[in-house]
Amino acid sequence: MTDRGTASGPVAVVGGGLIGISWAALFTAYGHDVALYEPVEAARAGLQARIAVARTQIGEIAPDLLDAGTVTLAQSLVDAVTDCCFVQENVPEKIALKREIYASIEAAAPADITIASSTSSLVWSDLSADMTNPSRLITAHPFNPPHLMPLVELFGSDPTRLAEAASFYRALGRHPVRLKREAVGHIANRLSSALWREAVNMVAQDIAEVEDIDAALVYGPGLRWSVMGSHMAYHLGGGDGGIGHYLAHLGPSQERRWQDLGHPTLDAATQAKLVDGIEAEARGRSIRDLEAARDSGLIAVQQALWGKRS
Amino acid sequence: MTDRGTASGPVAVVGGGLIGISWAALFTAYGHDVALYEPVEAARAGLQARIAVARTQIGEIAPDLLDAGTVTLAQSLVDAVTDCCFVQENVPEKIALKREIYASIEAAAPADITIASSTSSLVWSDLSADMTNPSRLITAHPFNPPHLMPLVELFGSDPTRLAEAASFYRALGRHPVRLKREAVGHIANRLSSALWREAVNMVAQDIAEVEDIDAALVYGPGLRWSVMGSHMAYHLGGGDGGIGHYLAHLGPSQERRWQDLGHPTLDAATQAKLVDGIEAEARGRSIRDLEAARDSGLIAVQQALWGKRS
Repeated sequence: MTDRGTASGPVAVVGGGLIGISWAALFTAYGHDVALYEPVEAARAGLQARIAVARTQIGEIAPDLLDAGTVTLAQSLVDAVTDCCFVQENVPEKIALKREIYASIEAAAPADITIASSTSSLVWSDLSADMTNPSRLITAHPFNPPHLMPLVELFGSDPTRLAEAASFYRALGRHPVRLKREAVGHIANRLSSALWREAVNMVAQDIAEVEDIDAALVYGPGLRWSVMGSHMAYHLGGGDGGIGHYLAHLGPSQERRWQDLGHPTLDAATQAKLVDGIEAEARGRSIRDLEAARDSGLIAVQQALWGKRS
Repeated sequence: MTDRGTASGPVAVVGGGLIGISWAALFTAYGHDVALYEPVEAARAGLQARIAVARTQIGEIAPDLLDAGTVTLAQSLVDAVTDCCFVQENVPEKIALKREIYASIEAAAPADITIASSTSSLVWSDLSADMTNPSRLITAHPFNPPHLMPLVELFGSDPTRLAEAASFYRALGRHPVRLKREAVGHIANRLSSALWREAVNMVAQDIAEVEDIDAALVYGPGLRWSVMGSHMAYHLGGGDGGIGHYLAHLGPSQERRWQDLGHPTLDAATQAKLVDGIEAEARGRSIRDLEAARDSGLIAVQQALWGKRS
């Protein structure tokens, strides 16, 4: 983001939770210095070690990265942003808290640098409402864990700033996408939520066990969607005639299928089935075990699909 | 399936379309002889060559397979099934046609061998209704293309037969899952359909371009779902408290998100947006180009995740 005024300092990462740590690891892996602000002093002690672990994982995907940046733990928000070139904000999903943080950043950071929010559940118009210059804010939602997931979903009001942010994230090995209109859940979590609703429905309706539904996804559409999107898959589902043929011949049956999808609620009985089913699927593996398996899988798939990136 | 009576002959593949070819390649790659029946004589000429191409792709995932079977093109349905050990039926999705085929198979095939239907859109109770012994029929739905996708979704009325079929498919490097109740679309196509509905909604609502929605899936949840199912992903979304914590704290917001998902129709305006958006995403690549890219991606991901299987 050196094209914005005098901006040449560190990237400010505001909030040292799971997302902030992951961003800090990614920024430094690609050569940026990071000023990380975590307001809870007790939480600061372990941050560098956790960032180092994430950095090691990034290195498995992109082993040729050489000019690593450093992470400085800032003592205050002002310290973190005062000479930064870009802000990545990752504080809890409370609108009043985020607005307060943006006011402080606007007062302390170099004029015109971009403030990017990692928000997953809030929208730009609400977040930017009290800002002196709302166009400085963009939402830049990563998919967890950000250092291992390429997706970043962008929205804001300033096309030039969004194009610059897209370039910035692309240079970090990310795959930025743009929303034309803001939407709760952006794109990916809306897709995830839509799919999970039917996954929950099938549990509630006793169509299949939790474990078999997850396996059907992993060994079926999930595998396919790791290499090709849903729209494009239906294009291929139309044979030589592509999506036009598909829509003409199978569109009506797809609409009927949509009518047949469920509308579950997370009532006590459904919650109990989900908890029991996931426990059975986990087969005693802890959350940490499962995260480690997920991460090594994410690394292996990216190595296979996109090679080892530098 | 040698445990069923005197069954020791070839696997009968009924229907030589895309799915039948793919199954024939898979069965022979794992050492079974295949008797393939394709009623349209003109369609038979190219079948062996197309099966050979699919066999080559299987070899990229499972290079140690040695005892390849052969494919014989049967002159009639009776010839194909008369001494077979298992039937995989892949004729067009017309219920009357399939019932007629099952009647012929029951009359000609060895007693008690299993008849597995690849049907994607029909259900077992309708398909088996006219059979002398309905319990011989199972639905065994593969995900396209079957020789590169591990998923097989099973349903039927005979638990022993289903367990045998699961073993049979597992020995072919497949990952069979079981439905407890039959459902239109089985599991995976219900999940695909639910996700696509929201993907179409976002196009219809101008939230994002087709290409960005597909990219959000591929670089976000699709990548994740290639290594971990949706239920398990929400388990990890609950942090150390797992799915119980997630449901208690984020269940209500998930239910609100479900309310916010769209209910698009495939009207003319939406169809036009889909066609235009997919054309833009394809960037001139033909259906064949896109299929080749999909297949090489599917092979690479499976090599990475599960190693080269023999």
